[in-house]
Amino acid sequence: MDNFIITISREFGSGGRKIGEGVAKKLGFNYYDKAIIDEAAEESGLSAEFIAKEEQTFSNSILFNLATSGGSFGVGGTSLVDKIYVSESKAIKDFADKGSCVIVGRCADYVLRDRNCFNVFVYADEDFKKKRIVEEYGYPQKDAAKLIKTRDKTRARHYNYYCDRIWGERKNYHLLINSGAYGIEEAVNLIIDSAKIYQKNKEK
Amino acid sequence: MDNFIITISREFGSGGRKIGEGVAKKLGFNYYDKAIIDEAAEESGLSAEFIAKEEQTFSNSILFNLATSGGSFGVGGTSLVDKIYVSESKAIKDFADKGSCVIVGRCADYVLRDRNCFNVFVYADEDFKKKRIVEEYGYPQKDAAKLIKTRDKTRARHYNYYCDRIWGERKNYHLLINSGAYGIEEAVNLIIDSAKIYQKNKEK
Repeated sequence: MDNFIITISREFGSGGRKIGEGVAKKLGFNYYDKAIIDEAAEESGLSAEFIAKEEQTFSNSILFNLATSGGSFGVGGTSLVDKIYVSESKAIKDFADKGSCVIVGRCADYVLRDRNCFNVFVYADEDFKKKRIVEEYGYPQKDAAKLIKTRDKTRARHYNYYCDRIWGERKNYHLLINSGAYGIEEAVNLIIDSAKIYQKNKEK
Repeated sequence: MDNFIITISREFGSGGRKIGEGVAKKLGFNYYDKAIIDEAAEESGLSAEFIAKEEQTFSNSILFNLATSGGSFGVGGTSLVDKIYVSESKAIKDFADKGSCVIVGRCADYVLRDRNCFNVFVYADEDFKKKRIVEEYGYPQKDAAKLIKTRDKTRARHYNYYCDRIWGERKNYHLLINSGAYGIEEAVNLIIDSAKIYQKNKEK
């Protein structure tokens, strides 16, 4: 059996990262999130700080990309945002080769579409996300609503641009789970149970 | 605690009805699907056969409704399709009053939006649905793809028209589950587990 990969896509503030960490810890799987940036930095020659910052405004770069028909402001004929996508995708494939793991964000479900993946989308009600953004991430209350809108827009635009799929569209996932309905810890348990059943059903 | 209602919305062929029956049976809940039609028939004076047939082509009636600005071809100033919606909604509320239950389709998540509901959306991959449509429902293979398209379009248009929400949009549900990834029986178990955790989390 191939390495088993659980990919987690998530709305900003829904706790997807924390849930991913919890799933990996309980299953004894590797966990990749920020490590993808470090690996992509090494691969691309760009700094990790630059990539991390760029990730939060991908959509602007993509619009620039579209406006310039592929762009020519980057490295080797591709734009910087293309370069980041390619480097991150390579990092994701390398990680998937190493062993069973949980990967959060960065189009992993698409990048690994031919592997043995269980794809989850984590979302939540506005109030649940706002509360977490203030209490867990430390942003001011007044910025929470705008942050949800802009970060999710960035994620969607980046995903839709590179993956030829719609971010959050149910058909791309095996499970879409409203984390606020269960709480983070129980969402972890439900995802693990679902992933195990999925794997067992596939082996039939 | 109010009666606990599990509503199941579903793509045509995904097995949502069978899953709903399974959930109700295992929990010892009442189950309502076709019974809503019988109750609505009694309430409206329309025949159950007429309502059942009308349900499969709601979208045409709704388009007629829109074209005639509310229509006047029905009973008491409302169109027949409005009359069916009102009667079915009344039946759904009556059933919800009677005890904890599972209700499949017919905008129950919206009709009961102020009650203690756990709302699930069941979907599946095209191949899984086609196989079920042929093997379980007995339709010819050649019609399966078209049936999926037209039935889901009808369901979506009916829901969007009456509920001021988008059919299948994740924010309207607590869980969206790809039944083909787990199989019908395990989808039943996952929904029951999720519903129990949801209920427990709500009581905190």
